[in-house]
Amino acid sequence: MPRPGRGAAATDGPGQRPRVTGVADLARTPRAQQTRAAITDAALALFRSRGYEATTMRAIAQRAGVSTGNAYYYFSSKEELIQEFYARSHAEHLAASRAVLDTERDFTARLRGTLRALIDVQAPYHEFAARFYKYAAEPASPLSPFSKQSSPTREASIALYREVLDGSDARVGGDLAARLPELLWLASMGVVLYWVHDTSPGCARTYRLIDAAVPVIGRLVAASRIPVLRATVRDVTAIIDELRS
Amino acid sequence: MPRPGRGAAATDGPGQRPRVTGVADLARTPRAQQTRAAITDAALALFRSRGYEATTMRAIAQRAGVSTGNAYYYFSSKEELIQEFYARSHAEHLAASRAVLDTERDFTARLRGTLRALIDVQAPYHEFAARFYKYAAEPASPLSPFSKQSSPTREASIALYREVLDGSDARVGGDLAARLPELLWLASMGVVLYWVHDTSPGCARTYRLIDAAVPVIGRLVAASRIPVLRATVRDVTAIIDELRS
Repeated sequence: MPRPGRGAAATDGPGQRPRVTGVADLARTPRAQQTRAAITDAALALFRSRGYEATTMRAIAQRAGVSTGNAYYYFSSKEELIQEFYARSHAEHLAASRAVLDTERDFTARLRGTLRALIDVQAPYHEFAARFYKYAAEPASPLSPFSKQSSPTREASIALYREVLDGSDARVGGDLAARLPELLWLASMGVVLYWVHDTSPGCARTYRLIDAAVPVIGRLVAASRIPVLRATVRDVTAIIDELRS
Repeated sequence: MPRPGRGAAATDGPGQRPRVTGVADLARTPRAQQTRAAITDAALALFRSRGYEATTMRAIAQRAGVSTGNAYYYFSSKEELIQEFYARSHAEHLAASRAVLDTERDFTARLRGTLRALIDVQAPYHEFAARFYKYAAEPASPLSPFSKQSSPTREASIALYREVLDGSDARVGGDLAARLPELLWLASMGVVLYWVHDTSPGCARTYRLIDAAVPVIGRLVAASRIPVLRATVRDVTAIIDELRS
């Protein structure tokens, strides 16, 4: 898909032929995807070796074998490349969660498998995450998982936790069921926060945290029709909404 | 008090006369306290200007106007100086919480005042906290608020939240009351975590978070005799204990 709101959006990149037919559209998609992937790979490699701050778009383009202008055509900033990284990580998380979501009905088993898969797929980025953390942790930063800019990946992640809940045997009523996936996603952010700073071998402590926390969450969800817990869900989601605004 | 387990513990420092009488004991205490304070002041000034990693004990001693040996007599490492900083911050927090704790009986008013006081007293260290955070956030680090080394200040902080609860009109039963102060302290760590990364003017967002979260905590505490919440308190404190071990 061409990026909306950019003058060059109807071409495959600066200096290329304008798109004229639907056939051309079909032809250019895989190539554009390849270029996007190459730029993203180059960016992640440089972010990991040089750090986020020290990496320039020019260096990213050079490593990807494209012109700086072409790199900017796909990603208007390094920030957008981080968003692409978030989206890619989510796609891997989704794939790694498939097995447990397709076979388990028990809510805690589904949640445990999904949270463990989240840590599994992030493993290669553990060192990068520790160094990048300070950019993502700032609540006002576009790189924060709570930002407006991060909302596509955040919404996709919340949808995954909705599937964890909806495909399970857990019984949760109406408006409560609507907000619980967001709280489960919030809990997953707590796990990631713990993981970022976890220096235990193989991040064993993070997996222990998941295994210990999941039954507690399971019991709260099972009891979630109790008025005080319903009210808490409402309030906590309202606080999230307010702090995000 | 002389530091236990050190050969020089019976003197006022290296090269000074051994202590012989109780009178000498009384005489040396204020002076030792002054020296401790001078070394701590010097350390904090250098940590703030040069960063924790780049600051040496030699530089700290030099700035405090004492010999390096004398500095080591009081603090065996930079880590101990951070523990002293934690202890000092806690003392300031305690003093700043006094007014609300001596006049308010309402649980949420006491908790709000105590949490706001925590952020108030830390304000001068906001920039330092953001840079120092990575050392404190590592669960296995002695500088973590969850570490064995941090336990004196952590226990003192938990005692403050015990006072928030015990001096209030909140009704909480037996073993539950025993563990709630720890959970309130944990909530305060969540507030500090948010504050560390809060770049809003005057950290206004952190105060908003406190004001929004306190009523939710108040309602959960009021409902804390509900079995599922009792069980959750037990489980969450067990998880904290286990991850700390």
